[in-house]
Amino acid sequence: MSLLRRDVLGIVAKLSECIASKGGNILGADIFVPENNQVFYSRSEFVFDPAKWPRVQMEEDFLKLSKMFNAMRSVVRVPALDPKYKIAVLASKQDHCLVDLLHGWQDGRLPVDITCIISNHERGSDTHVIRFLERHGIPYHCLHTTKGNKREAEILDLVQDTDFLVLARYMQLLSGDFLSSYGKDIINIHHGLLPSFKGGNPSKQAFDAGVKLIGATSHFVTEELDSGPIIEQMVERVSHRENLHSFILKSENLEKQCLAKAIKSHCELRVLPYGENKTVVF
Amino acid sequence: MSLLRRDVLGIVAKLSECIASKGGNILGADIFVPENNQVFYSRSEFVFDPAKWPRVQMEEDFLKLSKMFNAMRSVVRVPALDPKYKIAVLASKQDHCLVDLLHGWQDGRLPVDITCIISNHERGSDTHVIRFLERHGIPYHCLHTTKGNKREAEILDLVQDTDFLVLARYMQLLSGDFLSSYGKDIINIHHGLLPSFKGGNPSKQAFDAGVKLIGATSHFVTEELDSGPIIEQMVERVSHRENLHSFILKSENLEKQCLAKAIKSHCELRVLPYGENKTVVF
Amino acid sequence: MSLLRRDVLGIVAKLSECIASKGGNILGADIFVPENNQVFYSRSEFVFDPAKWPRVQMEEDFLKLSKMFNAMRSVVRVPALDPKYKIAVLASKQDHCLVDLLHGWQDGRLPVDITCIISNHERGSDTHVIRFLERHGIPYHCLHTTKGNKREAEILDLVQDTDFLVLARYMQLLSGDFLSSYGKDIINIHHGLLPSFKGGNPSKQAFDAGVKLIGATSHFVTEELDSGPIIEQMVERVSHRENLHSFILKSENLEKQCLAKAIKSHCELRVLPYGENKTVVF
Amino acid sequence: MSLLRRDVLGIVAKLSECIASKGGNILGADIFVPENNQVFYSRSEFVFDPAKWPRVQMEEDFLKLSKMFNAMRSVVRVPALDPKYKIAVLASKQDHCLVDLLHGWQDGRLPVDITCIISNHERGSDTHVIRFLERHGIPYHCLHTTKGNKREAEILDLVQDTDFLVLARYMQLLSGDFLSSYGKDIINIHHGLLPSFKGGNPSKQAFDAGVKLIGATSHFVTEELDSGPIIEQMVERVSHRENLHSFILKSENLEKQCLAKAIKSHCELRVLPYGENKTVVF
Repeated sequence: MSLLRRDVLGIVAKLSECIASKGGNILGADIFVPENNQVFYSRSEFVFDPAKWPRVQMEEDFLKLSKMFNAMRSVVRVPALDPKYKIAVLASKQDHCLVDLLHGWQDGRLPVDITCIISNHERGSDTHVIRFLERHGIPYHCLHTTKGNKREAEILDLVQDTDFLVLARYMQLLSGDFLSSYGKDIINIHHGLLPSFKGGNPSKQAFDAGVKLIGATSHFVTEELDSGPIIEQMVERVSHRENLHSFILKSENLEKQCLAKAIKSHCELRVLPYGENKTVVF
Repeated sequence: MSLLRRDVLGIVAKLSECIASKGGNILGADIFVPENNQVFYSRSEFVFDPAKWPRVQMEEDFLKLSKMFNAMRSVVRVPALDPKYKIAVLASKQDHCLVDLLHGWQDGRLPVDITCIISNHERGSDTHVIRFLERHGIPYHCLHTTKGNKREAEILDLVQDTDFLVLARYMQLLSGDFLSSYGKDIINIHHGLLPSFKGGNPSKQAFDAGVKLIGATSHFVTEELDSGPIIEQMVERVSHRENLHSFILKSENLEKQCLAKAIKSHCELRVLPYGENKTVVF
Repeated sequence: MSLLRRDVLGIVAKLSECIASKGGNILGADIFVPENNQVFYSRSEFVFDPAKWPRVQMEEDFLKLSKMFNAMRSVVRVPALDPKYKIAVLASKQDHCLVDLLHGWQDGRLPVDITCIISNHERGSDTHVIRFLERHGIPYHCLHTTKGNKREAEILDLVQDTDFLVLARYMQLLSGDFLSSYGKDIINIHHGLLPSFKGGNPSKQAFDAGVKLIGATSHFVTEELDSGPIIEQMVERVSHRENLHSFILKSENLEKQCLAKAIKSHCELRVLPYGENKTVVF
Repeated sequence: MSLLRRDVLGIVAKLSECIASKGGNILGADIFVPENNQVFYSRSEFVFDPAKWPRVQMEEDFLKLSKMFNAMRSVVRVPALDPKYKIAVLASKQDHCLVDLLHGWQDGRLPVDITCIISNHERGSDTHVIRFLERHGIPYHCLHTTKGNKREAEILDLVQDTDFLVLARYMQLLSGDFLSSYGKDIINIHHGLLPSFKGGNPSKQAFDAGVKLIGATSHFVTEELDSGPIIEQMVERVSHRENLHSFILKSENLEKQCLAKAIKSHCELRVLPYGENKTVVF
């Protein structure tokens, strides 16, 4: 359960008391209160008996608690009972992140259901991705975008019933209108150590800058390009012996892992927005 | 505050309630309950008004709470009010960890007071260490050890009033008698990735094993050599170009950092014994 | 080209001279001479015009050079002209390393041709691995092993024409007879930081030891279990919050990467045996 | 020995031949030729008998070789025979890098002689730094800078006979005039992962950007602020629990190590300028 509220005093007490009074056992908890700030963040893991404390009752109890404290948000998920998160994945030509997500979904590493893949790049029917999707009955929508038409209405239509979106190297900026219409979280992967190397070709930017470390950044999407709250960053060492191609290969390896970790953390309710442009990652 | 008890239910609620009822504000908390285990670990940071909730009263309140739940241990420290931890440092010939501790103490990075240095290796009066100690009025005791006489009674006498001991490359195994007589925590640094490379010359052992990563381990001292609960481990990459000397140099750099981090974590009450031979490090 | 010889003086000169005299251009070179040792290691990358310096002539030239200096080994490969390395992969029940190798082969990250997969664990025809192999025409041989019969004669028969073998979590110790009969390199992956945690269940061993870092090790196979020359090691941080299952998940992620990197380095002639039980990895 | 020239063919041969003909033994060598580029970089380590090949003769031999190939630069150093590099250190208020350099010099980790310390910040006579300098006879010059007067003429005068300069958190931009008048290398440390977070207060910039990794960068100084060729970069993980103060503490730890490593590499002739704004670090 994640909580976010404006008056700290006593809430931890009430929350723990509530869980204990229903026979629940807290397995672990993280509480974080930023300095000089009347907001607080908390994540608890607990076991409970659904016979004694039905899922619906639990929601109600936490909602009541939230209201009591003017909490702005409260989310509960029960791995064994709740359906998996539904996501749609948007991609362009580059396949590596998409393929890694599909494999992660297939072997159960990522606790999501993939409702569809949307791409602005055509793929032949004999490609690994298309064959995989057909075999598993995952719809593939190819929506060519042009400068004048980003096909956002169609995309919106296709992703209506998802819980969040993943941009797996989708090379198209989503408009503010799209973001507000969709209204849910969108996770992007960028193959640069943001805020360095925003925009196109970050590997080339890094290569030209002569850096000795390259990285990848997964973050929430906002209207401004590559500027949303950072969820996870990873780095790897590079030397003068690299060329642009090996920069890209190393970046791709980082991207896959960095995106998968962000999605996993998000599904486990570990990621919370914090301040104007930050995240808490429990 | 650190707590450790045998009955989980409700304790988190009571603890938070207690702090809130005294006007305290929890800034952050970590709770950890191992699987299949009726023990739990918790660490809270909170601010309070000592005028409204005097230090003595707080101790009493927590003690009462501990008793109510049969808690085995409860420790509270207030950085602004409490005296710093008093430690003694035991060293042998190698200076790098000792020197780093002295500098860490001097510039305030380590929240400790060093009551004395005990060494089984003689140092000239014109050495950096001795001059430093004289300048700062820290006693230096040189106690030569032999196979038959480990000088443990004298050491015990010198460290009686310390809060914990630090072995900064002390090349002498302390006896079980000493450990039980002293009865408080002792932190050691080992320049190998335990449980690999126990005992003498771990750098040479690692070099001969042809490893591609070397490390250092800080751990609590138990009667068995280099086998106590691990607090922190650090690694660095090595290549075929290294020789034994460069292994040792890299190890020394790791050791200093690994020991300093363990001491800092310990002083901040982040480190708790866990299971038979593990630690929780919040 | 990799060279290994017993008399250092002048060989670098002769080698460079030879390449230059044929119109070749050295792009990069690494030379390593261990201390107190009359052996040396070298790896050069150069471009040349096959019209002016045919592949066969080059081999002859280098062979002559090798003989002149009693060089023990000299290997040359030309990515554009030479066939890819042929490998067979041995696996047991665990799939993650095998699957990663297949994907790495498929998307060209690993410069190998997979001649066959040998497993001592049965897989259903509808599993991801079997479908993948069928689609790509890679033979799959299921050879059940028992205490009395390791099926080594059959394995030997199947891998006769390979360049090297990869053990992708093959849970069976190969005999000294097999090793000497095969006579070529065999690369294994172990999910522990060797020489720690040899043998079965290294994740459990590490978990029980309370380590704060876990790792994976790729190494050449020798008759002694998990004791051959180390090629690559990788680590990741773990905390008290992990359980055995999350140790295993993190280990699997490390294993895949560590094995892939070792195979890639080996194919690029970067890995050379060194001393009794070490490697040079240029 | 480091070489840089415009015609690659044959030079490696001639160089090795020259060393061998004088009875020298190459212990290791690195050669790097950037793609599409007629420049090449090389570093060799070799042992020789100064009785048979006097230092002066060696210089002459290499100079001849350089001229033969229009080599632009050739540097040779002999650790046992040559004097240590002479450096001056410029600092401002922050002490941690300066203190680490002094300790590194004292215990022999850094192969330099410190000719003087120049600071634009006053230090009391009872501070650790000043007492250290007095004890070791290292001159300390306090040159207050103002907007109108950077005291560059005086600085230039004081560092005339140094081999290179180190800016250990010197908070003052050196002018292009100063750089060209000094004409030798200047190494700076910046507590941000350049090219991110140039200029003042990089820790605050990083903190505000909500990054999950912070870093430090050592680089050569050019006229443009924080934009010269990067020598070394290091990172450390940060979480939402950090505040600006802990960002700064972690940065300081990274800075010390990153600067020390750059200086050491530079003294061992491992660092070479490459392309417009990069370095080769052998």
